[in-house]
Amino acid sequence: MSQQNPVFIPGPTNIPEALRKACDMPTMDHRSSAFKDILHPARDVVAQVLRSATAEVFIFPATGTGGWEAAIANTLSAGDAVLAGRNGMFSHRWIDMCTRHGLDVQVLEHRWGQGLDAAAYQAALRADTDYRIKAVLATHNETATGVVSDIAAIRRAMDAVGHPALLMVDGVSSIGSMDFRMQEWGVDIAVTGSQKGFMMPAGLAIVGVSTKAMAHIDGAGLARCFFDFRDMQAGYAANAYPYTPAVGLLNGLKVAGEMLLEEGLETVIARHHYMAEGVRTAVRGWGLQLCAETPDVYSDTVSAILVPEGHDASAIVTRAADVYGTAFGAGLGEVSGKVFRIGHLGMITEGMLLQGIATAEMVMADIGVPVAMGSGVAAAQEYYRAAKSHTFDLAAE
Amino acid sequence: MSQQNPVFIPGPTNIPEALRKACDMPTMDHRSSAFKDILHPARDVVAQVLRSATAEVFIFPATGTGGWEAAIANTLSAGDAVLAGRNGMFSHRWIDMCTRHGLDVQVLEHRWGQGLDAAAYQAALRADTDYRIKAVLATHNETATGVVSDIAAIRRAMDAVGHPALLMVDGVSSIGSMDFRMQEWGVDIAVTGSQKGFMMPAGLAIVGVSTKAMAHIDGAGLARCFFDFRDMQAGYAANAYPYTPAVGLLNGLKVAGEMLLEEGLETVIARHHYMAEGVRTAVRGWGLQLCAETPDVYSDTVSAILVPEGHDASAIVTRAADVYGTAFGAGLGEVSGKVFRIGHLGMITEGMLLQGIATAEMVMADIGVPVAMGSGVAAAQEYYRAAKSHTFDLAAE
Amino acid sequence: MSQQNPVFIPGPTNIPEALRKACDMPTMDHRSSAFKDILHPARDVVAQVLRSATAEVFIFPATGTGGWEAAIANTLSAGDAVLAGRNGMFSHRWIDMCTRHGLDVQVLEHRWGQGLDAAAYQAALRADTDYRIKAVLATHNETATGVVSDIAAIRRAMDAVGHPALLMVDGVSSIGSMDFRMQEWGVDIAVTGSQKGFMMPAGLAIVGVSTKAMAHIDGAGLARCFFDFRDMQAGYAANAYPYTPAVGLLNGLKVAGEMLLEEGLETVIARHHYMAEGVRTAVRGWGLQLCAETPDVYSDTVSAILVPEGHDASAIVTRAADVYGTAFGAGLGEVSGKVFRIGHLGMITEGMLLQGIATAEMVMADIGVPVAMGSGVAAAQEYYRAAKSHTFDLAAE
Amino acid sequence: MSQQNPVFIPGPTNIPEALRKACDMPTMDHRSSAFKDILHPARDVVAQVLRSATAEVFIFPATGTGGWEAAIANTLSAGDAVLAGRNGMFSHRWIDMCTRHGLDVQVLEHRWGQGLDAAAYQAALRADTDYRIKAVLATHNETATGVVSDIAAIRRAMDAVGHPALLMVDGVSSIGSMDFRMQEWGVDIAVTGSQKGFMMPAGLAIVGVSTKAMAHIDGAGLARCFFDFRDMQAGYAANAYPYTPAVGLLNGLKVAGEMLLEEGLETVIARHHYMAEGVRTAVRGWGLQLCAETPDVYSDTVSAILVPEGHDASAIVTRAADVYGTAFGAGLGEVSGKVFRIGHLGMITEGMLLQGIATAEMVMADIGVPVAMGSGVAAAQEYYRAAKSHTFDLAAE
Repeated sequence: MSQQNPVFIPGPTNIPEALRKACDMPTMDHRSSAFKDILHPARDVVAQVLRSATAEVFIFPATGTGGWEAAIANTLSAGDAVLAGRNGMFSHRWIDMCTRHGLDVQVLEHRWGQGLDAAAYQAALRADTDYRIKAVLATHNETATGVVSDIAAIRRAMDAVGHPALLMVDGVSSIGSMDFRMQEWGVDIAVTGSQKGFMMPAGLAIVGVSTKAMAHIDGAGLARCFFDFRDMQAGYAANAYPYTPAVGLLNGLKVAGEMLLEEGLETVIARHHYMAEGVRTAVRGWGLQLCAETPDVYSDTVSAILVPEGHDASAIVTRAADVYGTAFGAGLGEVSGKVFRIGHLGMITEGMLLQGIATAEMVMADIGVPVAMGSGVAAAQEYYRAAKSHTFDLAAE
Repeated sequence: MSQQNPVFIPGPTNIPEALRKACDMPTMDHRSSAFKDILHPARDVVAQVLRSATAEVFIFPATGTGGWEAAIANTLSAGDAVLAGRNGMFSHRWIDMCTRHGLDVQVLEHRWGQGLDAAAYQAALRADTDYRIKAVLATHNETATGVVSDIAAIRRAMDAVGHPALLMVDGVSSIGSMDFRMQEWGVDIAVTGSQKGFMMPAGLAIVGVSTKAMAHIDGAGLARCFFDFRDMQAGYAANAYPYTPAVGLLNGLKVAGEMLLEEGLETVIARHHYMAEGVRTAVRGWGLQLCAETPDVYSDTVSAILVPEGHDASAIVTRAADVYGTAFGAGLGEVSGKVFRIGHLGMITEGMLLQGIATAEMVMADIGVPVAMGSGVAAAQEYYRAAKSHTFDLAAE
Repeated sequence: MSQQNPVFIPGPTNIPEALRKACDMPTMDHRSSAFKDILHPARDVVAQVLRSATAEVFIFPATGTGGWEAAIANTLSAGDAVLAGRNGMFSHRWIDMCTRHGLDVQVLEHRWGQGLDAAAYQAALRADTDYRIKAVLATHNETATGVVSDIAAIRRAMDAVGHPALLMVDGVSSIGSMDFRMQEWGVDIAVTGSQKGFMMPAGLAIVGVSTKAMAHIDGAGLARCFFDFRDMQAGYAANAYPYTPAVGLLNGLKVAGEMLLEEGLETVIARHHYMAEGVRTAVRGWGLQLCAETPDVYSDTVSAILVPEGHDASAIVTRAADVYGTAFGAGLGEVSGKVFRIGHLGMITEGMLLQGIATAEMVMADIGVPVAMGSGVAAAQEYYRAAKSHTFDLAAE
Repeated sequence: MSQQNPVFIPGPTNIPEALRKACDMPTMDHRSSAFKDILHPARDVVAQVLRSATAEVFIFPATGTGGWEAAIANTLSAGDAVLAGRNGMFSHRWIDMCTRHGLDVQVLEHRWGQGLDAAAYQAALRADTDYRIKAVLATHNETATGVVSDIAAIRRAMDAVGHPALLMVDGVSSIGSMDFRMQEWGVDIAVTGSQKGFMMPAGLAIVGVSTKAMAHIDGAGLARCFFDFRDMQAGYAANAYPYTPAVGLLNGLKVAGEMLLEEGLETVIARHHYMAEGVRTAVRGWGLQLCAETPDVYSDTVSAILVPEGHDASAIVTRAADVYGTAFGAGLGEVSGKVFRIGHLGMITEGMLLQGIATAEMVMADIGVPVAMGSGVAAAQEYYRAAKSHTFDLAAE
């Protein structure tokens, strides 16, 4: 696989040069006073990116999966009921994790490609008159299907029936890229990782926790130690960690957050939409469909593209890697073989995406998918040119 | 804090240039076929460093603390009894973790500075006639006190009474630096991290698991998901991870292991002994004592140095950082304020250690500890010169 | 200007990750014995890339311009006649340098876009019956016009009339990318830099000198010191430099040469041809012409593309940079405003070139050049797909 | 040679982490508008470090030797007389360069170890009643002998006799480390390189030129092209270079200058004096002498230490490298075998210097020089402790 080509997977993203350098630190003593000048600013920028003035931010040397585990283990007890929508592989995995921790998961099934149905959440919550459900789980952006769901609507559903459960949101592939408002939406626990919107290598689980959720940690019965918010909170109060922190990644996170905030979250969000629209325009140019069923659930960080019946989407990913040295995302779970995915999050440019689109065209044609050379590229070019003319100038980034 | 001075903490170590570069990778698709050429070699070199031909090696994006949790959560059930020696802060913390996971910990208390007492282990195991004890925990090298314990002796104690418990060893600050023989010593689970003998940044929990321990994972009742050996094993079989791996750190681990094996484990061990002896000679030159009570438990990776009554060891660490830009390790827990620590593991040189010794001399004198300038340096110099003349030539490394 | 997009200038190229790391060295003592293990291998790989078994290779901390100066200053005297073809900005500059050193330059003028005319060289040399001409200068690849000339033909022209002058060749933008045979073609001095075929940052002037040319250095009257072959030769004999060498760049050069030789020079050359053909196919797809007048002089490292009358090629370069964060080469000298250039040398991929082509399409359309979106991309895609099917698999590079 | 130990050569220095990263840039288009934001700030910070409000600063991709050549070639003509003091290898080499360029060098011989004698300069200039001498050359800091000379005194000598010659100063190993005042001292051309006070890799020749010297460039008869101030000046006016610049090194120079200015030049100078005094104190502790004859000429960037009769100083350098993986500077020219050198310039710390001193002690003892272990270390420690207590706190750097 060429190291020259960018990756088009939905995270880890292509790491900006500045973040490569911020992460690549010589050893510093993590018990020295200098460490706090990394730790606290990193937590602060995360809180700002989460758009919460009150959240406690915990950063574990782990991944988003560890963040899920931290979320449930610090707030729930074995036997607790949780309500969770499943509309793709990542929501599926979180549900599986809950089950393995002895939680009683009430699953709201959705088609893979469908956004989470707030009405279904509301119905289930209304039926839970004795408040057995302690937590409501929602995946903001299903990375497997390229579907974004309306978290504000789920919050409204909870509020409509006055349900006191905690709202836990997987924002792994949305936070830092798409509109996410922890405080406004009443999210109690938001989970992400370093390798998506923060554009860094994998290795950090990032968890924002509301005051309401923090009140649950002493009563939570699930065992935890590595992921214990209490140890971490005590550590932070002493400018330290309960164990050895990943200092370089924390420094990278600090710089990544500063980059996002300097650009402005609104601009970051608009940029991701603009980049994504070009890809979606190319898909239309190919005459293909997205896995995401309706425009309102199109993800601005990843597009899962349905290949026509009779073709194997996995072959696209394999051939792109083997013949063109280019990485796309494969379909996972129910949509395995049916979709391939183009990630368009992080510091990606129109030019890079045109490269990805052009490569996808070649590969699809190679395996017999009827796609005309240049068809997607031309559509995306026209979109970008038109959008540039009245909106965007990202050249100076 | 100057970035020019090396650190003298007992890990993370000063990272060799080659490992800085090996870890600092552009993004590669962790689901591509190229990933297996990092993953499997990394696991292979770890197994060789552990000196086991049969261990399953699991590598989590976490730290040594996560490795402890993986060890117990994958093999034990709530209410299981475990036997553990406590002789310093890190053995203490592992015990605490067990307690928080609902295990019934039978603690063998030791003085902080004492090696783990195999006879005490044997007595406890002999008394456990109905084999309630499912796991025996031992910290090979207590980083807090600079004490190495005799794991082979603990294995002999177990065998002497025919006890079937699993032997779990914290080798965080010994593996890759001091003699460690997983297979010969019958260690069932060995835990370490990336930032000690492997000389890398923190961010990997490394766990070697014996065939015997692997047989316990399906019966283990403790909840786990992020640290589940089963998911990881299934992932490895598919050349992948159950979640996003820390590819750069894995690549660094591969290179680090290759470096150790190329140098030869015997040489690595001898080199650490040689470096450590110089530091210990300096301590004698100062007229001070180690926290480690007897020469047979002196650690070759870290020396905890007792400061005379009436002096605050913490002031040494603080002043070294503030005035000389130099990081030493502070005392932890029971020995807080009583010791300061000089780490001498990883790719450290005599010259670097002489710098550390010289700096410690200045700082001790500054705070009133009666130490003559040059006294420790001269002692260490004589040791190194003499040892060089008949043993060592490390200049070509 | 985005740091995410690759550059499409004809050097410095996009630096491969391995070379970034090879150049970025901590300080080593350049008078230590370790230096020779960089110096001599670097010189050796250069000789192999030059395809000479006998050339002395000199590497100065300078650029290709310094290499030109080294070539003339070490072999010629003020008042000496030299014969030089001019067919672009870089051949022009070398001529200018000769004039400023007091040489009597007999210039063979060519159209900018034309290859050097061996017959014209032969006629001039035949007329030089008293051998006033001491050196024949030829630019192998005119970077300004994307024109490669036939150096073997110029050697044949010299041999046909038995002229004893030295043959000096500017191979700055050909060596390491296109077919270059120092020994077979009887090149006496070959000049290049680090930032083209060797894919590194600028900072090294690389000069290969034949035995015949070496015989001239004592008699050469031009003053030189920094660029003196004699000091350098004496230095190399002592495993050293006459002044401080650029150790990191030398180490990078060593690694770059090893990369080229491991891939195989024939493959490197074929790869550059393949990449270039895709770009040229795109140009045809646009209905545009190259500055290079005929296919036999098409350069495989850079294409200079004529924009239609009435359009300003400079505006393309400016807009690409300002609006799309993408760097193309501008026209220089006589072709300023008439051409823009796409560099396609070094470790560039089809995908990256498709990005460049797609971006050029957008920019040309933006400024009114009648180019259909996707027209060049589609043409290049078809070329690459067809070529892939029977020739190339570079994905594993 | 270990890459873990710092170097103790008098340049290239140990490169600060921030400068490693500033130099290691991905390729940017050096003809793009972004380049000017590196070029001009780099030149500006150099002018400030030179302490000149009026100097033109030229930066060549070369070394200090190239800077010497640029100085003379741009201002002098063959046959011009120059007056130069020789008191070490570097002043010798500049004289040799002048001779090779056809200049008529009037050499003022000094003992190697002696500072340049302003009275001797004055006598020679007074005798030059017809102003044949066009340039006065002086080496501010003789790196070979560790001798700093009084440039202000030489300027006074010139002024005392009203001599109009240009004053050219080699400040390679002083500028950015020791007091240097281009404008106040009436220096017409100041020469340095990137790898000394600017703490970067070698690869840049840095030349400051006074308005008076600039007036000479059109009349200068020496041939030059690569080093021509006129091309460079025209390039800068167009935000560009006459050839490919070393962009990464220029960016590093910009950052290096900013670091020096942020610390404050007075502080930088004082810091170098403080570091050097510790080394000199150690030399006294050993009972040895410096090559520099008197305290007023002690260099704050390098100490050349005389070894007692009967011992070979070269053996110290060789053994330090071979046995202890540590680089010291060897004696050059007349003092070859008589001195070894410890460089103490750049971002070096007391601790690092104590390492160097301790290592030198071991090596000297190894080869039979009667030096007591710890003797130099203790002396330096006492110096640093005492100085710290009332002056310095560099720990936060």
